[in-house]
Amino acid sequence: MIIDCHGHYTTAPEPHNVFRDAQKARLKDPSLPAPKYPDISDDAIRESIEKNQLKLIKERGADMTIFSPRASAMAHHVGTEETSKEWTRRCNDLIHRVVTLFPDTFFAVCQLPQSPGVPIAHSIEELERCVNELGFVGCNLNPDPSGGNWTSKPLTDKSWYPFFEKMVELDVPAMIHVSSSCNPNFHATGAHYINADTTAFMQFIQGDLFKDFPDLRFIIPHGGGAVPYHWGRYRGLADMLKKPLLDTHVMKNVYFDTCVYHQPGIDLLFEVISVDNILFGSEMVGAVRGIDPQTGHYFDDTKRYIDALPISDADKHKVFELNARRVYPRLDKSLKARGK
Amino acid sequence: MIIDCHGHYTTAPEPHNVFRDAQKARLKDPSLPAPKYPDISDDAIRESIEKNQLKLIKERGADMTIFSPRASAMAHHVGTEETSKEWTRRCNDLIHRVVTLFPDTFFAVCQLPQSPGVPIAHSIEELERCVNELGFVGCNLNPDPSGGNWTSKPLTDKSWYPFFEKMVELDVPAMIHVSSSCNPNFHATGAHYINADTTAFMQFIQGDLFKDFPDLRFIIPHGGGAVPYHWGRYRGLADMLKKPLLDTHVMKNVYFDTCVYHQPGIDLLFEVISVDNILFGSEMVGAVRGIDPQTGHYFDDTKRYIDALPISDADKHKVFELNARRVYPRLDKSLKARGK
Repeated sequence: MIIDCHGHYTTAPEPHNVFRDAQKARLKDPSLPAPKYPDISDDAIRESIEKNQLKLIKERGADMTIFSPRASAMAHHVGTEETSKEWTRRCNDLIHRVVTLFPDTFFAVCQLPQSPGVPIAHSIEELERCVNELGFVGCNLNPDPSGGNWTSKPLTDKSWYPFFEKMVELDVPAMIHVSSSCNPNFHATGAHYINADTTAFMQFIQGDLFKDFPDLRFIIPHGGGAVPYHWGRYRGLADMLKKPLLDTHVMKNVYFDTCVYHQPGIDLLFEVISVDNILFGSEMVGAVRGIDPQTGHYFDDTKRYIDALPISDADKHKVFELNARRVYPRLDKSLKARGK
Repeated sequence: MIIDCHGHYTTAPEPHNVFRDAQKARLKDPSLPAPKYPDISDDAIRESIEKNQLKLIKERGADMTIFSPRASAMAHHVGTEETSKEWTRRCNDLIHRVVTLFPDTFFAVCQLPQSPGVPIAHSIEELERCVNELGFVGCNLNPDPSGGNWTSKPLTDKSWYPFFEKMVELDVPAMIHVSSSCNPNFHATGAHYINADTTAFMQFIQGDLFKDFPDLRFIIPHGGGAVPYHWGRYRGLADMLKKPLLDTHVMKNVYFDTCVYHQPGIDLLFEVISVDNILFGSEMVGAVRGIDPQTGHYFDDTKRYIDALPISDADKHKVFELNARRVYPRLDKSLKARGK
């Protein structure tokens, strides 16, 4: 079985986005009426999935996708905590509908109602709702709810601990994933995403988070940002900071996906990172939607790059399926219940 | 000849740092007297170089280093424009003394008296002083003088143009190099440096800077941040933004150094980036000073990684010497005047 650990609902039916626009408009003009969330038919959801993700999943030869709301649209910096709570519930409910309509193809991961300056503990209620009531298997955690101004504390700060305790209790991992950038220095998918991945990893090196939470698990997407390319730098910095080897200090708890959109990058990822720490992912349909003129294939068809690797079938099995089942135990349990 | 394009004076005599501390102390307590810059003897400078950079340059088999003030100590976010101006002049003057004492080994690159919110045009005077009066061959340009809060405009914004015009007029390149981070999210050498490299490159993709300045040249250090590892992503993003191919849109004006501290990273760099765009660099003595237990050699002995590449001697000659002479024409002219 081939499980893609990184998919966002970037093709949600338009009324969903219209609701968000109305929510934003009301932030600018509070005299506007509170927008009503639209009726979206099952057929509209089916069509948005069948024409896009489902079509590509089949074409590319995958089986399942761990699916979450559009990352760039989380935009935790917009409005107040209430704004974020309402938008987040709507987004997660929509993901739940997708999973209910396509139970053989999608597992759900939730966004969180984060908001700049608001304690992360306020996101616990939505995590519990999604996991306990709706069967979600993980969450996306934004290390910078300010959207590119980086006003929060590092992920190793104790202010994050109440949420990490809940993650461990529920046995769900988090993908560390920022949203859109309101800082003009940072292009969202070209700089902010990759920078956040790199930043989070370095925070983990500096801290001792996994001593306090030996069972906490994070996926750092986009192939770990800059980290594998600079693996020598990170090993050397851990040494200078008098930290243990990265294998024990960080890599028992941190996983990278394969959202690296060319063969040489994937080759490097597998050369320096243990195959036990790599989860197949494509972030499809996502940041880069075109066809690579050098190969004639979609940039984000990352399965092709992994297929081309000179690694054993057993290792490919880990990357395509077993690691995801290990990192997302609720997914594994659900698959087992179905005899898979 | 082997020219290292990226060295900082991280081993400056202690009185230089004591002056800076006194300058900072006076910012907190303006009743303190203005610190006097100390007398630093030629012998003290000689010793600081001979025991460190010169020793390592010889041991590792290089010949020359393009040398600039310690990057993490530029700290443009400290104090006012006046603070930055005085500190910058002192740092650049010290570099000039190193180059005067070791003319066969060092060429000078200056730091700039940048300060958050101060127009970059105010840095022109110091650039002209260093280049025209002291024989410097380039400068280090900080894309984020705020030190991790990223409050400036992107490098493609017209506010930077007066400085770029002067760079072109003087025919000097800039290495894009941030300084220390006062944002606790960003470890300086583990996150802020690498993020800035990635960010600058994406800004160049988004903009059309090199249409306006076809002769402007930048070195993006640390192997281009995350860029080569995600080369497919950047090619794909340029395509989505309807920009020309990166070869013509960016790579006629942008160069990467080889400050990537392990063999697989260097292998990737040379696999995806044209050898005409790569300059040998080590940032020695710098961010990562230890010995890699996997190889028994210094992480930052990057010459070893290049020596091990299966590329032609002609290509190595480009990376070790010819590209630096092309990107820094004033260095080339000076070498030629010496018959080299």
